[in-house]
Amino acid sequence: MQLGLIGLGKMGGNMRERIRRAGHTVIGYDRNPELADVPSLQALVDALEGPRVVWVMVPAGAPTQSTITELAGLLSAGDIVVDGGNSRWTDDAEHAALLAEHGIGFVDAGVSGGVWGLENGYALMVGGQAEHIAAVQPIFDALKPEGEHGFVHAGKVGAGHFAKMVHNGIEYAMMQAYAEGWELLQAADAVTDVREVFRSWQEGTVIRSWLLDLAVDALDADEHLEKIRGYAEDSGEGRWTVEAAIDHSVPLPAITASLFARFSSRQEDSPQMKLVAALRNQFGGHGVSTGA
Amino acid sequence: MQLGLIGLGKMGGNMRERIRRAGHTVIGYDRNPELADVPSLQALVDALEGPRVVWVMVPAGAPTQSTITELAGLLSAGDIVVDGGNSRWTDDAEHAALLAEHGIGFVDAGVSGGVWGLENGYALMVGGQAEHIAAVQPIFDALKPEGEHGFVHAGKVGAGHFAKMVHNGIEYAMMQAYAEGWELLQAADAVTDVREVFRSWQEGTVIRSWLLDLAVDALDADEHLEKIRGYAEDSGEGRWTVEAAIDHSVPLPAITASLFARFSSRQEDSPQMKLVAALRNQFGGHGVSTGA
Amino acid sequence: MQLGLIGLGKMGGNMRERIRRAGHTVIGYDRNPELADVPSLQALVDALEGPRVVWVMVPAGAPTQSTITELAGLLSAGDIVVDGGNSRWTDDAEHAALLAEHGIGFVDAGVSGGVWGLENGYALMVGGQAEHIAAVQPIFDALKPEGEHGFVHAGKVGAGHFAKMVHNGIEYAMMQAYAEGWELLQAADAVTDVREVFRSWQEGTVIRSWLLDLAVDALDADEHLEKIRGYAEDSGEGRWTVEAAIDHSVPLPAITASLFARFSSRQEDSPQMKLVAALRNQFGGHGVSTGA
Amino acid sequence: MQLGLIGLGKMGGNMRERIRRAGHTVIGYDRNPELADVPSLQALVDALEGPRVVWVMVPAGAPTQSTITELAGLLSAGDIVVDGGNSRWTDDAEHAALLAEHGIGFVDAGVSGGVWGLENGYALMVGGQAEHIAAVQPIFDALKPEGEHGFVHAGKVGAGHFAKMVHNGIEYAMMQAYAEGWELLQAADAVTDVREVFRSWQEGTVIRSWLLDLAVDALDADEHLEKIRGYAEDSGEGRWTVEAAIDHSVPLPAITASLFARFSSRQEDSPQMKLVAALRNQFGGHGVSTGA
Repeated sequence: MQLGLIGLGKMGGNMRERIRRAGHTVIGYDRNPELADVPSLQALVDALEGPRVVWVMVPAGAPTQSTITELAGLLSAGDIVVDGGNSRWTDDAEHAALLAEHGIGFVDAGVSGGVWGLENGYALMVGGQAEHIAAVQPIFDALKPEGEHGFVHAGKVGAGHFAKMVHNGIEYAMMQAYAEGWELLQAADAVTDVREVFRSWQEGTVIRSWLLDLAVDALDADEHLEKIRGYAEDSGEGRWTVEAAIDHSVPLPAITASLFARFSSRQEDSPQMKLVAALRNQFGGHGVSTGA
Repeated sequence: MQLGLIGLGKMGGNMRERIRRAGHTVIGYDRNPELADVPSLQALVDALEGPRVVWVMVPAGAPTQSTITELAGLLSAGDIVVDGGNSRWTDDAEHAALLAEHGIGFVDAGVSGGVWGLENGYALMVGGQAEHIAAVQPIFDALKPEGEHGFVHAGKVGAGHFAKMVHNGIEYAMMQAYAEGWELLQAADAVTDVREVFRSWQEGTVIRSWLLDLAVDALDADEHLEKIRGYAEDSGEGRWTVEAAIDHSVPLPAITASLFARFSSRQEDSPQMKLVAALRNQFGGHGVSTGA
Repeated sequence: MQLGLIGLGKMGGNMRERIRRAGHTVIGYDRNPELADVPSLQALVDALEGPRVVWVMVPAGAPTQSTITELAGLLSAGDIVVDGGNSRWTDDAEHAALLAEHGIGFVDAGVSGGVWGLENGYALMVGGQAEHIAAVQPIFDALKPEGEHGFVHAGKVGAGHFAKMVHNGIEYAMMQAYAEGWELLQAADAVTDVREVFRSWQEGTVIRSWLLDLAVDALDADEHLEKIRGYAEDSGEGRWTVEAAIDHSVPLPAITASLFARFSSRQEDSPQMKLVAALRNQFGGHGVSTGA
Repeated sequence: MQLGLIGLGKMGGNMRERIRRAGHTVIGYDRNPELADVPSLQALVDALEGPRVVWVMVPAGAPTQSTITELAGLLSAGDIVVDGGNSRWTDDAEHAALLAEHGIGFVDAGVSGGVWGLENGYALMVGGQAEHIAAVQPIFDALKPEGEHGFVHAGKVGAGHFAKMVHNGIEYAMMQAYAEGWELLQAADAVTDVREVFRSWQEGTVIRSWLLDLAVDALDADEHLEKIRGYAEDSGEGRWTVEAAIDHSVPLPAITASLFARFSSRQEDSPQMKLVAALRNQFGGHGVSTGA
């Protein structure tokens, strides 16, 4: 089938390639003309036969918002827009409603796989109406891994991004888990070669996982991670996961701790620890052995 | 080769079977005569040709302590004792010193694999002197998974149990990660079928892992876990991991949060929340909309 | 001066009394006619001479929203509305804008003091334009404690509720701090009489505070808090504090832990600990001494 | 009465002064001859009439251990040793047993008050036998604040240090609470003058406390704490509090978070966040907007 794909960055470009390998036609648009197959959204729409499926793969927030708004004006009733970016799930209902005014369907798709997706396939969590999803299914089948898993129709509009958001929250805490273990092994002198311990865990243990495999790859590239700063970005989903948990009175101690560890990692100096240090000075002064 | 194996419970019994399948001779002893091949530790020692290798697989703490003390009196110089139980790594140096007085070698072995180890193999993290480990290697090879990983000589005496302890700390936080995500998905109504979302994550995602596969198995057996209480034991290693981190000034927020979540799960009523509730009563009373 | 006061519950009723004791005239309205001085908002507005000051002391959210909307239609240019409830600070700008369309001023006031405010005074954190605050100052002076502190013009509209929100976030963690200490003292058998330890801390220690005094009062009423469930509500500000922190990438580990402890305290059974327990069953079964 | 006082640092020196002001005789010894009244422990013991009371106020651990051991050889049956330092409560039973062999009594005293104790008095939490405590009571009365609180006989030997340990754990979380609130107020632009908000909280609020007063003093000295690094030491009691909680399966999320925040504040770069960053690189690379 034909697909219009908007956003041909690292993720979008690889997805185009994987979909083409499956025998589909992808017409891609990107603001960067060197990446694009067509020069404009209008040209993209004109190049597709109806009913069209257009996949939006641009940054969450304003870029996705404006792209979908523009598509609402360009597409026709019966067409379908898929938002495969990392949009906040609460944006999806708005986008669906805007498109529905024009008779255009909407599917939200959480996509996991990173740079490995081109070869291994992308895990897909999608939300929307069954008939809209059915229309995109050949593309989903091209993108997903070859096994029996890696695709789920998670519920109505928003469910795909919600599931992807929680996936990322879990990911934060799993990464933090390995990271805490690694730091402790490094800090103690009990274990001679921390990397070999991590490597051994890849089979037979309870904690074997793809993330562990990646950790071993990272340690093989730089055993003590000397070239890497302890500075970790977060991309939104972790924050939204905590906010969703607060909305539902669900305690998320490990995921939230992982998010806060990233916040702290980005501070040159910790304002809160300045006040703690100042308070310690006020009642006793540093170095008073008996404290207060 | 010949192995003496002490402790034939669920773990020890399966390990005997896996070692025998590899062609070795295992003489097992257990306090329960129905499980044992010999009637006493003395009989076990008598039945083995020297130099002997005796693997202790009994509960950590006093049972392991007393077994090793008894073996120190029964074994001969040149024999080797392996502690494959979940001993605290700080016990290992004592045990090694006690046995060394008699010329007996000591190896500590952290073993991961649970009920799956019989078929899949057991991951092994071992500590001790190279010549002691070499003497046990055929047994380690029989127990470990068939792939290239799953075994590591982690360092000197204690390193095996230290590595296993950190492994379990990581495991706590990984289990907590999936559990938090599951609770949030259940609490929100965005996703129609939480189990199918978990199932889909088994391929292509960043969070795919063996623990995730087990989570899906558990949900297949009882979709909403209605037959299971939210009550989680902990077996020592999580606590020791946090204590080791404190000794080394290493922050472990996610692992510690996971440990504390288990503590809380076992309380009928939370004493600390009684005081919080009492304080709220003191300054405003429940239901005062404007709070304090 | 004259004040219109809407909402005569436990907080509003006490505030009316304290303002009257200071010699001002308070005309109160409440949906409950037994509490009200006038039968309607219209009657309240009619009874006040312009320029009027009307203080809204009703639950945050829809009740405050609808009251302010109604007042926008009833009051005149030059009048001032004070929102003294626990509104989310992000609501304030909207309310100010709505009133400004009619030339009506707006002040947001965070109020702390609980049932003790009648005698001790209420701490006030207010936001808005200086001239609006000046017009209300006699009322603020009547409400505040007699000392030199307890009142602050925290900034523009929203600043009062923001400061109060953070105040409550801090309160959550302080209550949690005492509560954790109390539980630990109760759990260990080192200390004979935990209440007497708490009592002694009221003088000379670093941790003396008004909350500590309240804790002692609570323990005097019920030494082991046997009549109180470990069940703690939260009233919104704790959640908003965490959300504001997430918006600004500020780690709040202690405040968030305190919020989550309240969430957990309200669960009959913990869904997330069900999954943890289920996972433990999957790989080893309860009671397997060597774990996994 | 007469008191022998060993350790005349900032705390010990001030305590000597306060006890003297109450009319007692203090003979002080310190390794630093400029501070000492007598040249040796032997001279201290010789200078006191029996039954003697000797107060040890030296750093916890080896210095306290060796001082008490030496005193065991110098003092006579019927004398009493008070350990007023920040010893770990688990050391107390050993010290008491060692002294009891010589018929010497032992009292452990947790002391709070910092540099403010000289004028305000020191809060005292003491453990030991009633007759030993009675013998020291005049000194306790001299040291404690003038009000009715500030002294408690908390239980048998060890109870004083245990109570002081928990006191410090609570202190960690209270300091963290204010610190988190301060950082959030600074980070958001809602509030114009954070220091004035803190100042206002000193009366009428739920969170008023002595620590809050100290925070205002610190902000008055350096409004934005620009001269202070966000680097906070910890002196042992926080760690021991968490370890005691683990021993008793008591969850301490806020206190532990406060301890870990201090650990993190002392790291130039976070090893664990290196691994998190490395994992992010492995699956997607920085700057991939759609993440993984």
